[in-house]
Amino acid sequence: MWTYNRNLQYPINIKNTNPKLAKIIISQYGGPDGELAASLRYLSQRFGMPDKKSKAILNDIGTEELAHLEMVGTLVHQLTDGASVEEIERAGLSPYYTDHGVGVYPQSAGGTPWNAATIAVKGDPVADLTENLAAEQKARATYEKLIDLCRDDRDVVDILKYLRQREVVHFQRFGEALNGVQEKLAQKKWYMDSIKNN
Amino acid sequence: MWTYNRNLQYPINIKNTNPKLAKIIISQYGGPDGELAASLRYLSQRFGMPDKKSKAILNDIGTEELAHLEMVGTLVHQLTDGASVEEIERAGLSPYYTDHGVGVYPQSAGGTPWNAATIAVKGDPVADLTENLAAEQKARATYEKLIDLCRDDRDVVDILKYLRQREVVHFQRFGEALNGVQEKLAQKKWYMDSIKNN
Amino acid sequence: MWTYNRNLQYPINIKNTNPKLAKIIISQYGGPDGELAASLRYLSQRFGMPDKKSKAILNDIGTEELAHLEMVGTLVHQLTDGASVEEIERAGLSPYYTDHGVGVYPQSAGGTPWNAATIAVKGDPVADLTENLAAEQKARATYEKLIDLCRDDRDVVDILKYLRQREVVHFQRFGEALNGVQEKLAQKKWYMDSIKNN
Amino acid sequence: MWTYNRNLQYPINIKNTNPKLAKIIISQYGGPDGELAASLRYLSQRFGMPDKKSKAILNDIGTEELAHLEMVGTLVHQLTDGASVEEIERAGLSPYYTDHGVGVYPQSAGGTPWNAATIAVKGDPVADLTENLAAEQKARATYEKLIDLCRDDRDVVDILKYLRQREVVHFQRFGEALNGVQEKLAQKKWYMDSIKNN
Amino acid sequence: MWTYNRNLQYPINIKNTNPKLAKIIISQYGGPDGELAASLRYLSQRFGMPDKKSKAILNDIGTEELAHLEMVGTLVHQLTDGASVEEIERAGLSPYYTDHGVGVYPQSAGGTPWNAATIAVKGDPVADLTENLAAEQKARATYEKLIDLCRDDRDVVDILKYLRQREVVHFQRFGEALNGVQEKLAQKKWYMDSIKNN
Amino acid sequence: MWTYNRNLQYPINIKNTNPKLAKIIISQYGGPDGELAASLRYLSQRFGMPDKKSKAILNDIGTEELAHLEMVGTLVHQLTDGASVEEIERAGLSPYYTDHGVGVYPQSAGGTPWNAATIAVKGDPVADLTENLAAEQKARATYEKLIDLCRDDRDVVDILKYLRQREVVHFQRFGEALNGVQEKLAQKKWYMDSIKNN
Repeated sequence: MWTYNRNLQYPINIKNTNPKLAKIIISQYGGPDGELAASLRYLSQRFGMPDKKSKAILNDIGTEELAHLEMVGTLVHQLTDGASVEEIERAGLSPYYTDHGVGVYPQSAGGTPWNAATIAVKGDPVADLTENLAAEQKARATYEKLIDLCRDDRDVVDILKYLRQREVVHFQRFGEALNGVQEKLAQKKWYMDSIKNN
Repeated sequence: MWTYNRNLQYPINIKNTNPKLAKIIISQYGGPDGELAASLRYLSQRFGMPDKKSKAILNDIGTEELAHLEMVGTLVHQLTDGASVEEIERAGLSPYYTDHGVGVYPQSAGGTPWNAATIAVKGDPVADLTENLAAEQKARATYEKLIDLCRDDRDVVDILKYLRQREVVHFQRFGEALNGVQEKLAQKKWYMDSIKNN
Repeated sequence: MWTYNRNLQYPINIKNTNPKLAKIIISQYGGPDGELAASLRYLSQRFGMPDKKSKAILNDIGTEELAHLEMVGTLVHQLTDGASVEEIERAGLSPYYTDHGVGVYPQSAGGTPWNAATIAVKGDPVADLTENLAAEQKARATYEKLIDLCRDDRDVVDILKYLRQREVVHFQRFGEALNGVQEKLAQKKWYMDSIKNN
Repeated sequence: MWTYNRNLQYPINIKNTNPKLAKIIISQYGGPDGELAASLRYLSQRFGMPDKKSKAILNDIGTEELAHLEMVGTLVHQLTDGASVEEIERAGLSPYYTDHGVGVYPQSAGGTPWNAATIAVKGDPVADLTENLAAEQKARATYEKLIDLCRDDRDVVDILKYLRQREVVHFQRFGEALNGVQEKLAQKKWYMDSIKNN
Repeated sequence: MWTYNRNLQYPINIKNTNPKLAKIIISQYGGPDGELAASLRYLSQRFGMPDKKSKAILNDIGTEELAHLEMVGTLVHQLTDGASVEEIERAGLSPYYTDHGVGVYPQSAGGTPWNAATIAVKGDPVADLTENLAAEQKARATYEKLIDLCRDDRDVVDILKYLRQREVVHFQRFGEALNGVQEKLAQKKWYMDSIKNN
Repeated sequence: MWTYNRNLQYPINIKNTNPKLAKIIISQYGGPDGELAASLRYLSQRFGMPDKKSKAILNDIGTEELAHLEMVGTLVHQLTDGASVEEIERAGLSPYYTDHGVGVYPQSAGGTPWNAATIAVKGDPVADLTENLAAEQKARATYEKLIDLCRDDRDVVDILKYLRQREVVHFQRFGEALNGVQEKLAQKKWYMDSIKNN
């Protein structure tokens, strides 16, 4: 079970309203490779893992991604909070404003609501962990594009770089989890069995 | 930020494997009115609330729904874990098994991956809180249908009744939050202003 | 059955072409909280209502929303009809024009085709009517955002204000329907029964 | 504008509850080629037609399809109304019941909520009317499959055959509309112009 | 089975980077009426055709559309390859760049990932071939809109006109296939049979 | 450009009609990890690869997956061709039959039309190739589930095992491509650059 601890929050203080940046950063909230996708993917895959270690890694990283989801939401909120309608319009945010005001809605930069079709839970530990390696690379790539596009706002870039760095760390940890699972499966000849009988 | 506390987990011990029940209960994991929808809806709406009290209620309930998401996932997992392929087939779970094995994937009972189009974040406190009143009623109704369908498994029904009861409590709390917000808006004439100027 | 009566049409005469406004107003045609969503939601829920009065209210409002769907479509059409390609481009309507020309297509301002996942029909009168209270609040909020964004075109704002006002009226009527249904259910102890037996 | 006339309703009186048939007939309510798709497609295309005659045909047929939508909804309702939970289960309707009870929800037989991606509005009269010829053929084919599957219930088959027959009539009328539009375009060299200038 | 022949490629050499055009042309890669939709529609329908001739036509045109898919992808690639971040921003391509860099992703101009709901396979030769007549008209209309919007780049327009012209040819061929199938069905009274028995 | 060579077809001769197996195998045609997803993913990513070798690998495997798409379609077709309506019903294929007859439509076993949200094209060679490693693992896992479920039909299992084996080979080749790309990027310090400048 999760408990919310206000004291553990990463401090986010964006000095300047900038809806134009919010418009693209929202993709790491509810886009195809964002933090919602990551968190839900890992927390869902947990149930099917064959050992405690991989379950724990998925639980840890899934929980951390929940915190990152909140960080990205806070970024989007601070970049739009108090913006005038004219600023919204100039930033090309009118379509978003029509349906969500300056709320934080889980959609991609391109405007598509988040869809669980973007994640996989295969009930196969090797496939699931390889999916996660890919997820981390895709999240890293997205943060790099965002860093390109937000280059003029140092406050924002610093947070994006922190979040990007965490994806690289997660990638390493999923690599270790995959090694552990493959060793375990090798001992038990677990996943090959379903094939052998045919 | 969230931290995961294993000691706070609601104890779930389903004695009998029953994939047929898992097939429908999955809807409260990733269906249109399930716990993922609830949790993400409330945690996303938080950012736009006009006062601390409503922010806190959304944060509390959103966090509790995360725990319920885990409970429903555990239910689905325990009802399918160790099921034979023949049991899967008899339960009509072959299509699900094809793409997800006995993993826990966020989809509706009808087989549609979860879609954020099922939730609203309007950046309007009155609209958002009324959305939540509806969400709680819809979740209640879904649990009642599930209680109908799972009637022969007492272990499962007990958990579903607990979860249903919590939705009723949340409905009350959102009603209070809505009252609070409406009073606040009345003082500030906040949401009418955008209209008045036109 | 419906019959179409040309004489009952609300007069819409927008003097100035303005594709930029069409781009966002389309959301009340085919966006998540638009008139299509409203109309189809109410007309679909009708079948499951427990009394004639609530059926009649849903039929009336659902039919009125069909008329509003036509009004919003007419708005979009008049705002784009005869626009030159250059005007289309300047208004940021090129993506829409690529796939729909200056036709009226049911999509959100953000570009997502309408999806029935945005509405609920639960076969539970209390849940369905609460869903409708939320729907009306969400539609009201959307019209308010549009009024903000269309502030410079008085013809358009007048129609949006009229449509907004109707949502407030519908909200009241759904509140009355909900009261009626709850009284009826209290007499019959109808919706609690399914729970009691478990 | 539409008005609802109760006296014009097609009489539907299905004698036997049969949720198994409801499960598939729902596709003509909210499936890819159902009555919602048809009605919304024609009523949306209306705005862009170049002459009064084709506008009128689209308005007429779109309005008739609204009536058919109601007929199909009534069919689904009568086939499920009063069904016991056991009947629901035996008919394979448990997933639908979980999320919609025995309400009428716009989805395909396969369980996918209706999506406007299934229809096209191109803002090009020739393309739109050819789209409609295809729509009528697809609706006819769907009714034929349903007639195959519902063969044992004469009440249901009679209505399906009536609805199928109407699609054939609509096909003819759209053929005439297309001829009329092509003649008009030939006079004005209308749709070729946009190409000529390049 | 397909083999790839590099020598058969249509030469595409776009001289000027222009991400603004890429943003809309992508719709013929992965939009509702684009080349992916066409190719997959025809290659999927093949299996159910009643004679060799119609199977061959579907296979030929489906294969040609695969080549056109590649041409459109090449267009998008050449129009964005080497573009600076500033050019991306000025072209309004930031949202796309966030999630896809300057890669070629199957989505509509409006930003929606391609969805098979945009195509039909009815297992009914007459319905399927009429669907294809509509598909070709819709593709033609889309190319005409793109020709309008890309009018200042002669290299691009030339390719779009070639691709448009092919859709007109395909339309003719599907018309012939439909005639052939209808004759065959008339002899065998094939599709009416399923109705007759009821 | 592709050419179709009938002589290169893998021979598929399924002796027994079995719609029940078709119902699940369709997922490798149009499900989240099926051959359409694979083929389109690789052929789309091609454009953005930094060297000829990785472009060629993507082109080769993407083309081979097109052939596999055809094989899976043929499997589905042979398993349903000539089935009676009663067989369709007993196999639980009535919903599919309603909308697609016994045609081959790109959907998952669970009934969801294929959606490009299931694939990623990031315009980042490392992310794209890691995505492909995951895609191959997910396809392998799906074939293994299908082999479990189709265990009683030797003809079908033999083809599924062949297709599964090819995914393992592709996984190896994408591993090599990733190594090649990483070496190339290390020389050029290519993908780190975008970060360094910030």
